[in-house]
Amino acid sequence: MSRKNINIGLFGFGCVGFGLYEVLLKTPGLKANINKICVKDKNKSRPIDAGYFTYDKDELLNDESINTIVELIDDADAAFEIVKTALMKGKAVVTANKKMIAEHFTELLELQKKYKVPLLYEAAVCASIPVIRNLEEYYDNDLLESLEGIVNGSTNYILTKTSEDNISYADALLDAQKKGYAESNPILDTGGFDAKYKLLILLAHAFGIVLNPEEIFNIGIDKISDLELKYAREKGYKIKLVAHAFKTGLNTVSAFVAPRFVQAKDKLFQVDDVYNGVVLETVFTENQFFLGKGAGAYPTASAVLSDISALSYNYQYEYKKLVSNKSVKFNNDFTLKIFLKYEVDKVENLRLYFSSIDESYQNNTVGYLIGEIEFIHLQKLSRIEGVSIIIDSVIPSSVIETDLANVLKNEVESLV
Amino acid sequence: MSRKNINIGLFGFGCVGFGLYEVLLKTPGLKANINKICVKDKNKSRPIDAGYFTYDKDELLNDESINTIVELIDDADAAFEIVKTALMKGKAVVTANKKMIAEHFTELLELQKKYKVPLLYEAAVCASIPVIRNLEEYYDNDLLESLEGIVNGSTNYILTKTSEDNISYADALLDAQKKGYAESNPILDTGGFDAKYKLLILLAHAFGIVLNPEEIFNIGIDKISDLELKYAREKGYKIKLVAHAFKTGLNTVSAFVAPRFVQAKDKLFQVDDVYNGVVLETVFTENQFFLGKGAGAYPTASAVLSDISALSYNYQYEYKKLVSNKSVKFNNDFTLKIFLKYEVDKVENLRLYFSSIDESYQNNTVGYLIGEIEFIHLQKLSRIEGVSIIIDSVIPSSVIETDLANVLKNEVESLV
Repeated sequence: MSRKNINIGLFGFGCVGFGLYEVLLKTPGLKANINKICVKDKNKSRPIDAGYFTYDKDELLNDESINTIVELIDDADAAFEIVKTALMKGKAVVTANKKMIAEHFTELLELQKKYKVPLLYEAAVCASIPVIRNLEEYYDNDLLESLEGIVNGSTNYILTKTSEDNISYADALLDAQKKGYAESNPILDTGGFDAKYKLLILLAHAFGIVLNPEEIFNIGIDKISDLELKYAREKGYKIKLVAHAFKTGLNTVSAFVAPRFVQAKDKLFQVDDVYNGVVLETVFTENQFFLGKGAGAYPTASAVLSDISALSYNYQYEYKKLVSNKSVKFNNDFTLKIFLKYEVDKVENLRLYFSSIDESYQNNTVGYLIGEIEFIHLQKLSRIEGVSIIIDSVIPSSVIETDLANVLKNEVESLV
Repeated sequence: MSRKNINIGLFGFGCVGFGLYEVLLKTPGLKANINKICVKDKNKSRPIDAGYFTYDKDELLNDESINTIVELIDDADAAFEIVKTALMKGKAVVTANKKMIAEHFTELLELQKKYKVPLLYEAAVCASIPVIRNLEEYYDNDLLESLEGIVNGSTNYILTKTSEDNISYADALLDAQKKGYAESNPILDTGGFDAKYKLLILLAHAFGIVLNPEEIFNIGIDKISDLELKYAREKGYKIKLVAHAFKTGLNTVSAFVAPRFVQAKDKLFQVDDVYNGVVLETVFTENQFFLGKGAGAYPTASAVLSDISALSYNYQYEYKKLVSNKSVKFNNDFTLKIFLKYEVDKVENLRLYFSSIDESYQNNTVGYLIGEIEFIHLQKLSRIEGVSIIIDSVIPSSVIETDLANVLKNEVESLV
């Protein structure tokens, strides 16, 4: 099969952009080269020939010799305008901007369809782990039961620090900011929003469900206090910010982002620092685990490169599950076991939210409750000041327990 | 995109075959159904309608309503005849038979090309881990530096047993045989041949290199004695049977199968029991880790199902690297650090094979040498009776050390 030549108009020229430039130049097999690069800062000195650069986006978007736009800028709104225009002009697009994708998913789907042009974004989720491509190409929806992942490197670095160095959340955040792993205003990461954008993208490719960001519930790690850290340490748990999507019934799926106690036997326990990890649970394989660097210039450039390579073979997402799985609905009808920390002087009557309580503890300033709670009540609880929530586990629904998949599995088991 | 209907002629009806039957029947989204099943044993009672079965392979191969053959039998020679005939008759084929594929790789490539018909075999390597698909679709060859994997479940179960239960190789093998994880004649697994067949398949999809099985060197785990087990335990290592393929220069690749000391920091350290794991090292991502069940009815059925699903979307391997990477050659020009155990009464002059020796030990019956050795000498050494070899590490070649990839990486690093 012959490969298509890829002529790239590149937006943004940070570390990822430069890495991309170098490797494309020196790997002729890829038949891809950068024609022009659009940047914002006119005063910055750049390591390559000034002739490459322009400050006018239209110079790339109107250039008919450019058949592919690679978008690597920070600003989600500006990125969307670029991507939209590029698709309308029939140019293929590669982007790493999860916020942009999550906020405009439906529109981006329509643009791809209308203008028959591919938009690839493997770098937007878990950088170097090819999770989107695997969900799209390999995991047939009928068999996928759940997906859980550590998809945000900044928060994972912070949480790893609290656990390994026995320091507070605030100190770990400061350290992450010093090392450049967290922004000065870190709420997109620490509030679980970045993880939510990624989960939204994963949901479409895993289960064929398209949502708006506000439809997915997220709790961040920013309220975690020493009590939770101490509790986790004593039990031998780690706290991880987990993006979780799972079947709640035969044709229903739910999803949320929240911190969770992870035990040593859990695959996600090993995912530390800026690594990302994803566990896919299917009917037949129990679970599959993917681990790789989730952030940084190289892993991101690597994912961008793989998308460019795929474009050269005319690859595009076919959103198979979106097309085939129209009967699958999103719902929030399930129960969890949680650990709830509260500040004594700020709240009362918290027990009323719980279906049942297994353990409780209180001193003069703080206390905790461990018990089962319906997800809709959890959402209300999380908005109360002085409260912090860590998920212990999702309680498997009785529907799922008796569903086709398990019946099948037992039948086969009895035969083995 | 519309999905093609898949009408299956199935060879073999063990656990995997039955699982496949059930799940296909109950997942209408897949548009795949089994028309006819060819089995060998006429006296075995079977859990489904007798009308499905035949003992005549031609009844499947000549049936024009069958467009896909799924081959799940043990006998590699019989399997090849079936697969060959099916391809010649224009039928797509899904198989899990690594021995058959490895022994006939070139011929199978030609058949696919000549008859323009797909042959998929994800289940043949690491069962539930989609490693072939990822190598084929995602990891561009220019960026892949090495691949190492625990690809044989039986030997990994045996080695895990020796390590966890502190028992001898012979006892662990017996346990594996009792549990059905190892054959009564286990040499295909314990001699590293099964791992070699899988490595041969991986080499084609990872680096575009096609070899015959006898061109790949393999050492098994069958000579491992208590000395090596004790040494590993004392150092906190695990011994794993590792299939390893790696660049030895800009355009050269080598590969072999051998037991290796794996340290706790290594991703493969966590791969225990019948799990398989693969680490891909690329220029930009450092490493990627895939973990999943490598053997058993469900994981194998799962991979077969994914291949059937892919066929319904007209997927086929394009062997991209085979086409694009004609300049990449296989060679064995590299040095390793090894641990060599010897029986005192059987051998002498072993030191002459080594380039350098770091450590040596000897008692009245056994001794060991730790040092560097050229790979060609290692091959000779391994044939000497009374000798057992565990790899410590491959010494990075100076060519690779200064190669383009690393130059690039450093340039980018200096910019970050």
